Amino acid sequence: MPLFIGVDIGGTKVLATAVSRSGRVLRTARRTTPGRRVEARLVEDALTEAVQEIAGIRRIGAIGIAAAGFVDAQGERVRFAPHLPWRDEGVRARLAERWSAPVVLDNDANCAARAELTYGAVGNASDALVVTMGTGIGGAVVLDGAVHRGHNGMAGEFGHMQVVPGGHDCECGGSGCWEQYASGNALVRHARARIGHQPTALDAACDGDPQRLTGPMVTTAAEAGDAVALDAFASVGEWLGVGIANLVAAFDPEIVVIGGGLSAAGDLLLEPAREALRESLVGAPHRTIPPVVRAALGPEAGAIGAAELARQTFRSAGTRARARRRAARGTAPRR
Amino acid sequence: MPLFIGVDIGGTKVLATAVSRSGRVLRTARRTTPGRRVEARLVEDALTEAVQEIAGIRRIGAIGIAAAGFVDAQGERVRFAPHLPWRDEGVRARLAERWSAPVVLDNDANCAARAELTYGAVGNASDALVVTMGTGIGGAVVLDGAVHRGHNGMAGEFGHMQVVPGGHDCECGGSGCWEQYASGNALVRHARARIGHQPTALDAACDGDPQRLTGPMVTTAAEAGDAVALDAFASVGEWLGVGIANLVAAFDPEIVVIGGGLSAAGDLLLEPAREALRESLVGAPHRTIPPVVRAALGPEAGAIGAAELARQTFRSAGTRARARRRAARGTAPRR
Repeated sequence: MPLFIGVDIGGTKVLATAVSRSGRVLRTARRTTPGRRVEARLVEDALTEAVQEIAGIRRIGAIGIAAAGFVDAQGERVRFAPHLPWRDEGVRARLAERWSAPVVLDNDANCAARAELTYGAVGNASDALVVTMGTGIGGAVVLDGAVHRGHNGMAGEFGHMQVVPGGHDCECGGSGCWEQYASGNALVRHARARIGHQPTALDAACDGDPQRLTGPMVTTAAEAGDAVALDAFASVGEWLGVGIANLVAAFDPEIVVIGGGLSAAGDLLLEPAREALRESLVGAPHRTIPPVVRAALGPEAGAIGAAELARQTFRSAGTRARARRRAARGTAPRR
Repeated sequence: MPLFIGVDIGGTKVLATAVSRSGRVLRTARRTTPGRRVEARLVEDALTEAVQEIAGIRRIGAIGIAAAGFVDAQGERVRFAPHLPWRDEGVRARLAERWSAPVVLDNDANCAARAELTYGAVGNASDALVVTMGTGIGGAVVLDGAVHRGHNGMAGEFGHMQVVPGGHDCECGGSGCWEQYASGNALVRHARARIGHQPTALDAACDGDPQRLTGPMVTTAAEAGDAVALDAFASVGEWLGVGIANLVAAFDPEIVVIGGGLSAAGDLLLEPAREALRESLVGAPHRTIPPVVRAALGPEAGAIGAAELARQTFRSAGTRARARRRAARGTAPRR
């Protein structure tokens, strides 16, 4: 069987995976992302090394790339990527040529949603929202059992919906964006503001320097019952629920899946979100409120979904080619 | 040809229409909605009278009902309607039995969107958002050339997305809902607050009593250049654009259609909305910003769309029945 490879490229790391037909990760390779102020070539070198480490001498069926940025509707170009050097570049064709292999390209949140849809928490639902809670918020829309990419390939940019007029400035150039209130960054900002004003285990965790505080430190402290850390989760969770209520009012999905690094906190994050959703959602007494569940696939979801996109796109071509070869040889398909 | 009838039932009036195959309104009948604190039977009597006036002795193909309320995903029940007496009632089957005719039921904003999709401003776009600006905000989501009704039939409730935390109280029980800032009610509230503080033609328009001010008065004054009225449109239009930017971030549609009574103000409303959309939309330099256009069909859109839903649902059944009759008679179809 040919190998289907998924590569997730974010602002800090490259994760390449070989993924089985049942969505299992067979093996992984990692590289550091060289940065965003470097030549695009250097980032593509890192991708190439990771893919070579995974593939070895095996025949490649296709390679999917999950990129942290805006990917056009055709899946050809990275239009813009805040943490990568690509600026409106035809990444798909260039890498396909360099690797002499079929390549597909999509946004990382769409890829993660595709993995959750095919193998994960979306389950049998045909319509779902997938909200990826990391440093910021990514997202994807699943409609009729497929990821809905939108007219520009930019559907699912939930993190930059404005929820507070004149609120916190956002890296996108706007202000009051949802991800300023519900994300890993928001969690750390909330907790950081309390350090020094209230006794908390976070003091020790960050060696007394609030600038060294990280999201996982807050999660660990919250799990141990620290009041400041719990309060930060209550705030971020409530904002998560308020934003979900807005999205549910608009889409009316069957399920809401929360992924990304912050979702590791589980019910610390999701319970306040569910409560805010119940309280904020229009027509709540007259409808089924969608369950808000944790993603099933963890940090490899983007790479798994990229491999799945590669498989969906090129499997049928491969199947037809094999059928032709079998027909030419006069042999029956193996089971 | 059998008649396809669309009936739009809102909080104040019932509008019944006979609609041609090309979406032209052939004739209309109107009744007053008896109220929301009356027996459901009285509302259904008003619907029946309007339908009878339209149909006369002609054979009815099917009747579509556009209801101002939450309609379930099956199109059977009105779950809740703030301005009508129906409370989780099986309206579709009851009226079909009373009228001895095929009946279909949907939310009024979905029907208006279906009309704009089939005959109006959606044009060739496959994905669109339709925002209905009346007293409040209604809405509908068009995906892949069809109205997307959602898991509970409640997709498109854009008016109750929260845009201002702790903002104006809303009839829905929430606060800070979009329709509190961008709607006919918001326009009147904005203008009303200035009367008596600033010279304005609205003084005379409402006979010096701000409580008598209406949306059309503000529109007329704005068209004549009145500063207070223009300022009200600038505010409502800007909020319209901010909310559209949120929806476009999430859905990435090809076009945004603005309907409802307030859309009669045209560019007075739409220009500030377009400007706010350009300024607020995430990734604006890296994407096509969807055009924001006025709906084409006016106040009859809901009824036209209800008739269209009836036609789409029952035409094929009728066509098959006629084909069977022709086959039995051995005649060819008439052109």
